Amino acid sequence: MKKVKEVAGNNTSDLTEMNRSAIVRILQQREVCTRAEIAKMMGLTQASITKLVAYLIDMGIVSEVGIVKGNGNRRSIGLRLNAEKNLVIGVKFSRHVFAIGVFDISGKLYTQSETEFSLDENTGKVLTAMKDQIRKLLDEYENVVAIGLALPGPYLRKEGRIAMVTRMPSWHNINFIDEFKNEFDKPVFIEQDANAGALAEWWFGDHGRPLSSLTYFLVGEGVGSGVVDHDSLLLGYQGIASEVGHISIDFNGSTCECGNKGCLELYCSTMALLKKAEKELPELFKEKYENRSEAVSRIVEAARKGNEKAIRVLQEIATYIGYGCVTLINAYDPEIIVIGDSVSQGDEFLLPTIKKIVEERTIPEVSSKVRIEISRLKVDPTLYGAAAIATDRVLRKPSEYLASN
Amino acid sequence: MKKVKEVAGNNTSDLTEMNRSAIVRILQQREVCTRAEIAKMMGLTQASITKLVAYLIDMGIVSEVGIVKGNGNRRSIGLRLNAEKNLVIGVKFSRHVFAIGVFDISGKLYTQSETEFSLDENTGKVLTAMKDQIRKLLDEYENVVAIGLALPGPYLRKEGRIAMVTRMPSWHNINFIDEFKNEFDKPVFIEQDANAGALAEWWFGDHGRPLSSLTYFLVGEGVGSGVVDHDSLLLGYQGIASEVGHISIDFNGSTCECGNKGCLELYCSTMALLKKAEKELPELFKEKYENRSEAVSRIVEAARKGNEKAIRVLQEIATYIGYGCVTLINAYDPEIIVIGDSVSQGDEFLLPTIKKIVEERTIPEVSSKVRIEISRLKVDPTLYGAAAIATDRVLRKPSEYLASN
Repeated sequence: MKKVKEVAGNNTSDLTEMNRSAIVRILQQREVCTRAEIAKMMGLTQASITKLVAYLIDMGIVSEVGIVKGNGNRRSIGLRLNAEKNLVIGVKFSRHVFAIGVFDISGKLYTQSETEFSLDENTGKVLTAMKDQIRKLLDEYENVVAIGLALPGPYLRKEGRIAMVTRMPSWHNINFIDEFKNEFDKPVFIEQDANAGALAEWWFGDHGRPLSSLTYFLVGEGVGSGVVDHDSLLLGYQGIASEVGHISIDFNGSTCECGNKGCLELYCSTMALLKKAEKELPELFKEKYENRSEAVSRIVEAARKGNEKAIRVLQEIATYIGYGCVTLINAYDPEIIVIGDSVSQGDEFLLPTIKKIVEERTIPEVSSKVRIEISRLKVDPTLYGAAAIATDRVLRKPSEYLASN
Repeated sequence: MKKVKEVAGNNTSDLTEMNRSAIVRILQQREVCTRAEIAKMMGLTQASITKLVAYLIDMGIVSEVGIVKGNGNRRSIGLRLNAEKNLVIGVKFSRHVFAIGVFDISGKLYTQSETEFSLDENTGKVLTAMKDQIRKLLDEYENVVAIGLALPGPYLRKEGRIAMVTRMPSWHNINFIDEFKNEFDKPVFIEQDANAGALAEWWFGDHGRPLSSLTYFLVGEGVGSGVVDHDSLLLGYQGIASEVGHISIDFNGSTCECGNKGCLELYCSTMALLKKAEKELPELFKEKYENRSEAVSRIVEAARKGNEKAIRVLQEIATYIGYGCVTLINAYDPEIIVIGDSVSQGDEFLLPTIKKIVEERTIPEVSSKVRIEISRLKVDPTLYGAAAIATDRVLRKPSEYLASN
């Protein structure tokens, strides 16, 4: 573990690395870019950029791609990131399933798989299965530079431990840092699921640039959030900042497992949605559902067929998601809130209600500016997020992780 | 206004400036330090530090102060910040009073004054009076390097406008950036009050170092919060992140001026406290009070004399402040929450209840680690915060603001 410096100093090689990182981050967000465009975006001279790019080309991180039209219609050489030579493995771990995928640092998916396990399963066995699968992928894909692991929150990132996991207490004592730090010859980076989702939207989402502040609002079996503010993930002291699912919306509400009362999670998780739906729409659940996400799909399908009760149930959940958005706005003042995970399937029934609540419950200066969207990522945001955790870290230290791969 | 760069690059002079800034920030937190200690804290070689310090001494920002015991009991030359040569003016603007103080960048107070005004007063007149006083102080204190202005939130910091001010709508259209940007030959930096308080605790508070994350919880006429996470103020998109006073604790509660229902501010502001107290303790308010802060003092005094009703009223407010702390913990995972402003006068009646609520309503991993304290600053935290706004900015660019003063 790196020792925390009080006020870290930087030397010239840190500076060079920061600038290289800035270049690869710009190229990660764009297909092709010229040296002049990069110089302008970074506020550096073209001579400096030329030198920095020469190194990145030498190291195989960046390539030239022929002539493109640059600034003022002049023809210049285009640059692109050699994303396909820099793969990351993303691992999503949740209550009863783990998913593993291979991606490149531009977010392209190569392969993915899911493994279900029972909550009674021995934790060691599950971890061994997960590690075996990762090892197999490392053998198969030789260009993997790092591994990202997304865990259910609250994950104490300095300690390496999940603090509290609803219905899976046996995982409470696993130290994920110890489990993974020396397991592979590739670095493993770990964050909690909603932070992973935020990084997925930040790196792989299509929200336009520059973006100052993004909040990912995870509404699924758990409810959580992740915040990227001015290019940094909001972490807090123990790495568990931004637990919107445990912010109370009713101080007299029912008691949550965390000790708090009236936690948002109690009102808009899949469990809350299904409880309502099973009561209002018993006909949908005559056949047992495989998992909660599938059950949510049944409600959304019914709503799409015009079932008014289904529509109403979704709108009621949307009201609470709306309260959650109002809380997120007052807490983080995001430029954009991206709502993801299983509940968000019913987007056309959710968004109008959510936006109405936000308009009613925030000042016009804010409600008129904040963008509220449903995640449009093509991969499960948490699995994608696991890849984004690794991508985020390697793009910040290109020489350390990407060079001469 | 500085153009936002997408991914800012840095050149060698930026690097040097970052390192100079790191040194002055270390010295700002300590009376005296040696070159070797600074080198160790920053993780740079002593040769680099010697060169950086030589410049800071040449520019009059740092001085040598004789021999001190350094690392391993060796005798080394001590260094100190020439704080007294670098003064800042702090200006606190609130609903019916503005306060102006002269401080140095170590937080030492030189002078302060308050000016009351009526809400019906012409805004231009109030601004002119404020500017005249600042100008007088600039004449009197020649070493002023910058001015900090703390405004009631939500302050839209890119636009320069206060978005909503309870009971002072005439101030809504004042553009504070336009008013102040060319008014003096010193730079003026503007933030909202709770952010200012957070910076005051960060720079002038005595909370031990290194500190990763601090939340200031302002509980006075308004209720708000400011967050410093890993050395950066959490700002959000429009600069209005961390409005805990408008996070709802009861989605069915009464409607707040902001549009939201059950805002925390409705439960624990001075107004909420006085409403309860006037009902329960009418005998304390037979004589009209001068201002709400004075009225709060009466309740606290009565409680100190053993008045059980007064104690109960304070404890009831403390319960809501406790709910606020639980929200802040779930939102920001701070290492320390510092509670300040007028309600915090009754600290011995508040803290036990607040801590009990936090213990009940958060997981043990968090409640056992978070520190919750009442502000011990000797100056009004918002006025002090105005000075901290300026201090924060000048310490980040020592060559630009401090040199050759």
